[in-house]
Amino acid sequence: MPNSPVPGSPARRRAGRPGHDAESVLGVAARVFNERGYDGTSMEDLARALGVTKSAIYHHVAGKEELLRQSLDRALDALFAVTGETGATTGPAIDRLEHVLRGSVRVLVDELPHVTLLLRVRGNTDVERRALQRRREFDHFVGGLVREGVAAGDIRPDVDPALTGRLLFGMVNSIVEWYRPGRGLDGAELADALAAVAFGGLRTTPPTGGSRPRP
Amino acid sequence: MPNSPVPGSPARRRAGRPGHDAESVLGVAARVFNERGYDGTSMEDLARALGVTKSAIYHHVAGKEELLRQSLDRALDALFAVTGETGATTGPAIDRLEHVLRGSVRVLVDELPHVTLLLRVRGNTDVERRALQRRREFDHFVGGLVREGVAAGDIRPDVDPALTGRLLFGMVNSIVEWYRPGRGLDGAELADALAAVAFGGLRTTPPTGGSRPRP
Repeated sequence: MPNSPVPGSPARRRAGRPGHDAESVLGVAARVFNERGYDGTSMEDLARALGVTKSAIYHHVAGKEELLRQSLDRALDALFAVTGETGATTGPAIDRLEHVLRGSVRVLVDELPHVTLLLRVRGNTDVERRALQRRREFDHFVGGLVREGVAAGDIRPDVDPALTGRLLFGMVNSIVEWYRPGRGLDGAELADALAAVAFGGLRTTPPTGGSRPRP
Repeated sequence: MPNSPVPGSPARRRAGRPGHDAESVLGVAARVFNERGYDGTSMEDLARALGVTKSAIYHHVAGKEELLRQSLDRALDALFAVTGETGATTGPAIDRLEHVLRGSVRVLVDELPHVTLLLRVRGNTDVERRALQRRREFDHFVGGLVREGVAAGDIRPDVDPALTGRLLFGMVNSIVEWYRPGRGLDGAELADALAAVAFGGLRTTPPTGGSRPRP
């Protein structure tokens, strides 16, 4: 049932109820954008999901595009914060790459609706194009780490570094398709599993060669 | 520029021009559904993209939902065909898994618009729910291979087999986000790269432990 606004003191009305603080407006907006698509969502839809009036939302933001921008920045700022951490800037490149991989899983879990929205952006507006540009910068950072790791002899040299980075983060990003917080693994366990598969591979034994491509 | 219909003999009009055979109608429909979203696409939009009249499309299919069903079946039938191949049914489980992984990459590349559409389905209609059910059956098949491979000692036992399957096919499925046929790698090269990363892992050296999660 939607939360319809109730009379009360300003203090009580702002006590963390959805629609009464900028944070909850942003979280609900990202969720509704993901469910209905950004283009298919009106400010009226957002007001209904929040159980408030449209003017209550305009109290916090200028409009729908501002909510999109804030949501995408939330995800991107968190990802770029990982690239600035000591673990991502010092030590062997392969360890820095693992740090960024684990940090990205943590960001994905902590900011799930915002990262989900980011991964669906197609570049239809200036806000979306700016987000895509920042995604490319992040991918470039990752690609650089893979190249350094290959040069250091720690990362397999037989796959193009840019492709390795894409496959690696394709695996990370696919988590948004099925992960639901509070059910099953937490972010740290998920990061462990992903790092184990990505860096160690599935195979415990040398390949038999039986399934190589036929000429 | 849209292909507007031109006068001509029936033979000439059916000579593989978009909109004049069921195959091209299906391919263009899948592409437009991916670009505009299924809900956001009208038969009018499809007719415009094909450069034909709506009645020319109705000559081939009953309507929009029939096109969706055919497109999803195209992707799913191709994926299930892989699970029935000898390489997927005989030999060590890890080799069968690699066969299915490589076959899935091939299907993804060969049927890109249809697989892309399949991966975006959210279960809003009976057609979509049936497709999701078949996707779950495919995932179940993959999960079974991973479990068998773990039992045989060939696949790492420290990650839950269902999660391993999800991460593996998360990596496969992420290819639709950036792969464009005719540019860069072909399907076989892409399958090689993916199998190398997935089964062998990125790391050529034992881990230093420097980037494990902090307590």
